[in-house]
Amino acid sequence: MTISIGLIAFEGCIGSSVHALADLFTTANAINRQMGRQGDLFSTQVLTPNGSSVTASSGHEIPSDGVLRADVPAEVLMVPGIGMEAVGEIDETLAQMRPLIDTLAEQATHRKITTASCTGTFLLAEAGVLTGQQATTTWWLASEFAKRYPSIDLRSGEILVDAGPVITSAAGTSYLDLALHVISRLADPQTAHLCAKFMVVDGGRTSQRPYTIPWHFMKRDPLIEKAAAWVRQEITREVSVATLATHLNMSPRTLHRRLSRDHQQTPQEFIQEIRMQEAMRLLETTKQSVAEVGIGIGYADENTFRRAFSAHIGTTPTQHRMRFREG
Amino acid sequence: MTISIGLIAFEGCIGSSVHALADLFTTANAINRQMGRQGDLFSTQVLTPNGSSVTASSGHEIPSDGVLRADVPAEVLMVPGIGMEAVGEIDETLAQMRPLIDTLAEQATHRKITTASCTGTFLLAEAGVLTGQQATTTWWLASEFAKRYPSIDLRSGEILVDAGPVITSAAGTSYLDLALHVISRLADPQTAHLCAKFMVVDGGRTSQRPYTIPWHFMKRDPLIEKAAAWVRQEITREVSVATLATHLNMSPRTLHRRLSRDHQQTPQEFIQEIRMQEAMRLLETTKQSVAEVGIGIGYADENTFRRAFSAHIGTTPTQHRMRFREG
Repeated sequence: MTISIGLIAFEGCIGSSVHALADLFTTANAINRQMGRQGDLFSTQVLTPNGSSVTASSGHEIPSDGVLRADVPAEVLMVPGIGMEAVGEIDETLAQMRPLIDTLAEQATHRKITTASCTGTFLLAEAGVLTGQQATTTWWLASEFAKRYPSIDLRSGEILVDAGPVITSAAGTSYLDLALHVISRLADPQTAHLCAKFMVVDGGRTSQRPYTIPWHFMKRDPLIEKAAAWVRQEITREVSVATLATHLNMSPRTLHRRLSRDHQQTPQEFIQEIRMQEAMRLLETTKQSVAEVGIGIGYADENTFRRAFSAHIGTTPTQHRMRFREG
Repeated sequence: MTISIGLIAFEGCIGSSVHALADLFTTANAINRQMGRQGDLFSTQVLTPNGSSVTASSGHEIPSDGVLRADVPAEVLMVPGIGMEAVGEIDETLAQMRPLIDTLAEQATHRKITTASCTGTFLLAEAGVLTGQQATTTWWLASEFAKRYPSIDLRSGEILVDAGPVITSAAGTSYLDLALHVISRLADPQTAHLCAKFMVVDGGRTSQRPYTIPWHFMKRDPLIEKAAAWVRQEITREVSVATLATHLNMSPRTLHRRLSRDHQQTPQEFIQEIRMQEAMRLLETTKQSVAEVGIGIGYADENTFRRAFSAHIGTTPTQHRMRFREG
């Protein structure tokens, strides 16, 4: 039995998300044939809000195979990311997309699985499909997502969250991880594994944290910006929550409430995040040894730094440098 | 000055290659704006053989922005992969694509950079653009490529080869590595670095070897199949070239000539490749320790195995398991 996949596309969507999903399901079919099995595992069709072509965020057109409605036989609906650049665009973007959100709210209930990647997770959140579920989203909008949807259990460090009937994936090309996961779940793990090798995709990614960039996170909240600047300035020393609060002219309790409300972090988590962002920056852009990077962010002992980095980022300092060395 | 990129598309091309390149250049523009700089770094247009839409290998349509000809202002031409499944398809596919190959031969000389990824490398090879140059190609057609184009210096282990005016990348999603490299070279490394993080792409991939699958390589040459089966059967012992040749009823010299001619390998390299393929399989699909995997392919000493694996595959056994664990 061929599983029909509905690839949602809309004005301003991430075009590579739509086409990469299509290509990975096509690859799964090719592998199935190579293994001597009959028939296609998957078929894909592009569904757009009113059945017309849409223009992706890159400016390139994506033709439509039909409208998303009740009589379309798609067992799986997959929502791509929305091409956005700034937090300030979200309200207007979601307001414009209200008809699609309403359609998703109605149609998702008739499908076996609904997925979204990157900023597309906001569409499923608005549609109510994620309420009470675990989910992930794109790293640079994670605190915005958490603030808007307190009833969704956000796991923003994860590349992919499978909550059964709804699966979400993280920023950018995490649509590759998503496609492999759907192939593994609906076909079998071996086919997904071979797809990963054919398409030269790393199958074992679990954490989104190595990809985060500090400057983006910092730009929108003066308090956070001031706090981050001070943690960075004092980074070679031990920064306590009490001294940070004093520097910000507030009580530790107010700092805790403010960070918890707007960024879903405790002050300790916030301080640790700034330190680890700085460690990533030093690993990526300097030739300092791992021990020197550790000292640079206040870890006198190299092994303690190595353990803390791995626990927070999900890879070792050396692996991180190999993956993200600048230039 | 905005750099214009011509994204080539044709019947049966890999659609995600075209759209992923477009999305990464679009992301580079967004990052440029975020950094407060004016203007776009890149513009992209889809160029097709006769200016009409084409149908990608996934069955989805890619509209055209124009024809590839002399008056099109594209400083960079980027050729996507061809959706093929079997070595036997190459002759007919390339014969059908002769008009595009002729156009590429003519047009590449007028451009600053021409690139190809995956099976698209065959089009540049046919067009003569790669003659005398270093190049890479998709892993499962590497020996076919080497046989057809002896005057090209094939580096099939590499994810990406920059030979100056011509850049090639390996199988599948190596178009992501290619896009980042072009952004790094034509804009700057920092923009490429931030693009990688925004799009959740690992920037540090260098080797295509971890992605190779043995069964595919084995299917087309009875001699190779027999040789591989015997090496696998004897894998826990030391297999010498002499005993392998004896098993195949030929002299070591004939075996050497045959492997060299058809697979660009020495018998020693062939034996080592089979062993490392088996090591990858054991790491990916069993829970055996690294020491046990080493013993399983004939390495009594764990450290010797670790060194040999890293030298051949480009990552440690433990990293490989993390990336490719099946299921």
